[in-house]
Amino acid sequence: MKTTSGNFFEDYTLGQVIEHAVPRTVGAGERALYHALYPARFALTSADSFAASCGLGEEAPLDELIAFHTVFGKSVPDISLNAVANLGYADGRFHQPVRAGDTLRSVSEVIGLKQNSNGKSGVVWVRTTGLNQRDEIVLDYVRWVMVRKRDVDAPPPATVIPELPAAVAADTLVVPEGLDFTAYNTTLAGEPHRWGDYTIGEKIDHVDGVTIEEAEHMMATRLWQNTAKVHFDATNREDGKRLIYGGHVISMARALSFNGLANAVIIVAINGGAHANPCFAGKTVRAWSEVLDKAETTAPGVGAIRLRLVATSGPSSDFPLRAEDGKYRSDVLLDLDYWALMPT
Amino acid sequence: MKTTSGNFFEDYTLGQVIEHAVPRTVGAGERALYHALYPARFALTSADSFAASCGLGEEAPLDELIAFHTVFGKSVPDISLNAVANLGYADGRFHQPVRAGDTLRSVSEVIGLKQNSNGKSGVVWVRTTGLNQRDEIVLDYVRWVMVRKRDVDAPPPATVIPELPAAVAADTLVVPEGLDFTAYNTTLAGEPHRWGDYTIGEKIDHVDGVTIEEAEHMMATRLWQNTAKVHFDATNREDGKRLIYGGHVISMARALSFNGLANAVIIVAINGGAHANPCFAGKTVRAWSEVLDKAETTAPGVGAIRLRLVATSGPSSDFPLRAEDGKYRSDVLLDLDYWALMPT
Amino acid sequence: MKTTSGNFFEDYTLGQVIEHAVPRTVGAGERALYHALYPARFALTSADSFAASCGLGEEAPLDELIAFHTVFGKSVPDISLNAVANLGYADGRFHQPVRAGDTLRSVSEVIGLKQNSNGKSGVVWVRTTGLNQRDEIVLDYVRWVMVRKRDVDAPPPATVIPELPAAVAADTLVVPEGLDFTAYNTTLAGEPHRWGDYTIGEKIDHVDGVTIEEAEHMMATRLWQNTAKVHFDATNREDGKRLIYGGHVISMARALSFNGLANAVIIVAINGGAHANPCFAGKTVRAWSEVLDKAETTAPGVGAIRLRLVATSGPSSDFPLRAEDGKYRSDVLLDLDYWALMPT
Repeated sequence: MKTTSGNFFEDYTLGQVIEHAVPRTVGAGERALYHALYPARFALTSADSFAASCGLGEEAPLDELIAFHTVFGKSVPDISLNAVANLGYADGRFHQPVRAGDTLRSVSEVIGLKQNSNGKSGVVWVRTTGLNQRDEIVLDYVRWVMVRKRDVDAPPPATVIPELPAAVAADTLVVPEGLDFTAYNTTLAGEPHRWGDYTIGEKIDHVDGVTIEEAEHMMATRLWQNTAKVHFDATNREDGKRLIYGGHVISMARALSFNGLANAVIIVAINGGAHANPCFAGKTVRAWSEVLDKAETTAPGVGAIRLRLVATSGPSSDFPLRAEDGKYRSDVLLDLDYWALMPT
Repeated sequence: MKTTSGNFFEDYTLGQVIEHAVPRTVGAGERALYHALYPARFALTSADSFAASCGLGEEAPLDELIAFHTVFGKSVPDISLNAVANLGYADGRFHQPVRAGDTLRSVSEVIGLKQNSNGKSGVVWVRTTGLNQRDEIVLDYVRWVMVRKRDVDAPPPATVIPELPAAVAADTLVVPEGLDFTAYNTTLAGEPHRWGDYTIGEKIDHVDGVTIEEAEHMMATRLWQNTAKVHFDATNREDGKRLIYGGHVISMARALSFNGLANAVIIVAINGGAHANPCFAGKTVRAWSEVLDKAETTAPGVGAIRLRLVATSGPSSDFPLRAEDGKYRSDVLLDLDYWALMPT
Repeated sequence: MKTTSGNFFEDYTLGQVIEHAVPRTVGAGERALYHALYPARFALTSADSFAASCGLGEEAPLDELIAFHTVFGKSVPDISLNAVANLGYADGRFHQPVRAGDTLRSVSEVIGLKQNSNGKSGVVWVRTTGLNQRDEIVLDYVRWVMVRKRDVDAPPPATVIPELPAAVAADTLVVPEGLDFTAYNTTLAGEPHRWGDYTIGEKIDHVDGVTIEEAEHMMATRLWQNTAKVHFDATNREDGKRLIYGGHVISMARALSFNGLANAVIIVAINGGAHANPCFAGKTVRAWSEVLDKAETTAPGVGAIRLRLVATSGPSSDFPLRAEDGKYRSDVLLDLDYWALMPT
């Protein structure tokens, strides 16, 4: 049998290190496609001149989510091909900007295992690390997925549930080397609001909506070499629908958040995230944000802001999140918790 | 309120200069996407070797319409977010080719204002200028849009209607530095017809048609960071349709015009233009051209040709334009008037 | 008449050499789009670092099929605009990898002619050669097409049917200069199976399926500047369908074959191919392969494997090919015969 059908729950062992296949060089093409697929307008990743004025060198880095999706995509064949659900993210940290010409690869370590009480599946926690061609860490994050067992009679592993922080501690955020916002131009960036203008608890409706097409989410998902068949094969589900890669919703919502958060120009950490409901073509995605926390950094003119980013398939103006029973409302697609950097 | 809802008619004042946000570096990725989105085959922007043989340096410039759309897109949030209609273009001039790695930004000056007699809206004329990272002018053009008033009781401005030329004067066209068509290879360019083979009044049916998909026009429009919601949000109109960015039709028609005008390889001026009827996905776009004028230039082997480019959603072989009442026929999408350069 | 309606059968003469128009520079943008359009994961064209570890220089070459489609696309306006059918391929050989920044052009020589007995059409055989900016041959192949006559009364040419090899002889395959698989990393490449693990006659079901959208195949086909109207104009057929470019199915099937043939990393020859049935949007493409032959090469650690690649619009697990009458089954889209290189 030459083809693989992916790993099942009993294939994982605590401490196991999986080197994921197919390194990928990213560059000008991925940057352009990212702008074609999402309404991305953050100045720092749009213009070389703007990046240079912020101390980041001659050429703008690639959007942080290009790095995230590329690293994530490599892990799919080994981690989530047989996943019933992508349960959560935690402790995600961006260690350095990705540049055109960088080659990314991914490695995951199994850090937790827990068989479900039904004996048919279990939860696997992995820490996935993205590395560049110099073997430097580009980003790392924990995610946990529910995976089917191949053989329901396989013995359960010892239960180990990793301790994970509710959020990345502000003093451990990695500010890109050289970043300096003292000459930051808010006119060119698109909005006047600086770090000091945001208050904890403030909610922002990002107003705009984008109706998603099959061709777009498939092109995006392939671009990250994520080959999970649910995203591509319309014969895979009885209703003939293709499930949209959760990361497509993350990028769409993040791009929509420009309107109101144009100066939250760099994502530096992912504290947590839930794909609250599946997304399908034809849905119109909207987004709103809530300021969860703020912190200072030691870099000149640079503040950190912790944001909840919620994507919805219905109106965003009433800030939908949870129903009275505490569960996510059916129109909520994404609930993401992240840290970004802003000019002070 | 952190989000913007755009400018309304009473927000504009004569002489006002608006520096548009989010500069953009364009390059190899945008070039490839342009070829994927449009049937673009003009040799000068397709092949480095062809550009070099015409004196334009080692690397082919980007299609002039990539520059136009990028500069236009930046102006949308400030100029046309609340536009009822994009009424026209005039006096557009391309000042130098855009190269991979160039970073473009846009500035607009309000040069005319006229409140409509109904008191609910008005016409705003702006001259928009695109600049590169060396603050050199890449292109400039005038456009005018009808914009709603936020407050119908706001006092009207003094009416100022700018004087605009019917066409850019031939002796003010900017021929790219170094351009030399004396070694121009018509075999490689795709057609034998040179400047001298075209006669004023001649009409050319470009024969081919392209049926447009939602995913394509949205990707194109996002690529230029044009975020006007009518192009993306299917819930925005009662009929669930997304209005296609007029520039998408311009690029589609221009690319189709290769068949018959393969040697009109560079656009150097936009004399005028009207988006005669809205375009929606599912329409099949065809195009025809009429030779409006011809002029010599001082560059070696280079002639100028003034063309009317008409896009239609029906057959193009009968050269549709206006109905008996003088209005555009309902199948006419675009009526564009431009100058291009050809080998003599 | 400025536009062309393409060549008809009586326009071809034996020995005629046609220099096709519009050279094209390919690079980082085409590479990224190829990954967005197809689930392409072969490590050698995905990562600079992997290519370097195989002796191919600092930058990964472009996928061989990017070269093939680009060279093929240039020939369409002269060879297949009036083709009734694309009948076959033979004797195709890749002579060197294509690199970002290379400019490709195409030349075809008419090597065979045979009028059909009905007198209304005929078969034209051409050898098409792709050349780069240094006039070096990048690839060449024979294809034959059935072309309509413009004038049924035009006299038939002398019948000449070229002798074509059933397959490219293994000892004439061109191994890219410097290729060395002795340090080949199967973990990074995605599968452990090496040349010695495959046996002649072995069949591999590639498992995955991709449902095709109109926007995707049109973007792909335009990217190769293939402008045959059947692919773009929904008004061209009575059923309103757009025929998908056969090369789109080739690339889709080849990318799907990664699952089971991840180490068949370079295509070096195309022995033959048939587009067994037309493909339309909405179909879900699957693929299976059969090992037809194996051969050694003189390059270190490099073996050659001859593969049949079959694309189907139905299930692939039963290896569909021909019906009892010897004709292709109606669910078979493609039957391609090629040589690839693998680590031994």
